[in-house]
Amino acid sequence: MTDAGTPLSATPRTRLRRMKEKGRTDRGALFEVLRAGLVCHLGVLVDGCPMVVPTVYGFDTDHLYVHGSVASRSLTTGAEACVTITIVDGLVLARSVFEHGVNYRSAMIYGVPRPVTEPAEKLHGLRLLTEHVSPGQWDYARRPDRRELAATVLLALPLAEASVKTRSGPPDDGAGPDAALGLWAGELPLVSSWQQPVADPALPAGVPAPAHVAARVGTRVDRSGGSAGLPQSPDDLGQG
Amino acid sequence: MTDAGTPLSATPRTRLRRMKEKGRTDRGALFEVLRAGLVCHLGVLVDGCPMVVPTVYGFDTDHLYVHGSVASRSLTTGAEACVTITIVDGLVLARSVFEHGVNYRSAMIYGVPRPVTEPAEKLHGLRLLTEHVSPGQWDYARRPDRRELAATVLLALPLAEASVKTRSGPPDDGAGPDAALGLWAGELPLVSSWQQPVADPALPAGVPAPAHVAARVGTRVDRSGGSAGLPQSPDDLGQG
Repeated sequence: MTDAGTPLSATPRTRLRRMKEKGRTDRGALFEVLRAGLVCHLGVLVDGCPMVVPTVYGFDTDHLYVHGSVASRSLTTGAEACVTITIVDGLVLARSVFEHGVNYRSAMIYGVPRPVTEPAEKLHGLRLLTEHVSPGQWDYARRPDRRELAATVLLALPLAEASVKTRSGPPDDGAGPDAALGLWAGELPLVSSWQQPVADPALPAGVPAPAHVAARVGTRVDRSGGSAGLPQSPDDLGQG
Repeated sequence: MTDAGTPLSATPRTRLRRMKEKGRTDRGALFEVLRAGLVCHLGVLVDGCPMVVPTVYGFDTDHLYVHGSVASRSLTTGAEACVTITIVDGLVLARSVFEHGVNYRSAMIYGVPRPVTEPAEKLHGLRLLTEHVSPGQWDYARRPDRRELAATVLLALPLAEASVKTRSGPPDDGAGPDAALGLWAGELPLVSSWQQPVADPALPAGVPAPAHVAARVGTRVDRSGGSAGLPQSPDDLGQG
């Protein structure tokens, strides 16, 4: 078992080299990014070349689970992958083009993806994934039957080697000679939020969206601020 | 010169294998995704392993330009990269967990990144990149001087081998047996939009944000609908 206080490994590639960005190696920072994100970008090797695939994810204290149907068809067994989760918080508009940038939070997780085959772990991973993108949906929708479970490709990555990088705040040229240019500078924040649900036209008229869906309208995708504590422990595999 | 009608190459890896998703190989579809996105995920090989780095991009008819400071430090010369741009349009909430999914648009571009060294092309690429994330900013902010230009790492990828995938619309289980479950199903759309600018605290009080920044408040990041025609031709390198 790991906990939020265990530092993530800092290998040479996860060590930070850009001074302006802030690196964090604690697990709490990783879980904040995982909670704030919605999809990840999974980088795998295919015939010796990188392929970057967007996909959904879920996580517990020890593992990241990703939907792997596209990547897995050509996944090299035992080869390492890199999964990156990025939240763009806004633009950094400086006095000079050179100092422009992006305020963001990102996590890069390295590891060898393991295809999940054991049904209880597959259910556990699918539940985490479903609840990450749409909390409440696992208890509302029909859960996978044996055939569907077998047809689902799920990959697990250990949350062992990772780096978290963030940048926030105003541009860096406010105290330099460019401040005398008299130009406006600052941040242009960006927010992703859920809109009114659109009912499937195949539904009978007047079926309302369930409360756990309707309640999200107008809320932000980023749920990192509202959640407290650790993600679920993998000990209760397949429960719920 | 290429134009919007030239098909993108469809190599085995860019051929589509998932039936529910819609693949497009025309260049117009690629430019729609490039216009709609804000950041990309650049996948490169580092010591034989994939590394996926979020970064900003710009583009003209022939090239994708990406800011390459992080990736380039360990970039294997001549090795192929994959750049993926993803726009998440919403969740697909089906009757069964198995049919859940994401409505999205994505482009995967394959190619060997070329470090841009010629100053005119570097200026051209930086202008495209700056104007992609913040239209109007290139003419407002101070442009890079010779020293800054030399310190900027910019990579160019040819827009030659790419695939575009999209999914839109309601879930697919509205006509199957699960429709009898009487559950709500549909889409939960997601929109990313610009918020009120936050002035740099180093600014004197009362300096208003310029019109090209203020005008974005409340607008969507996705500009694919508003733009018409082709992106800029690379013929006017370094102009403007």
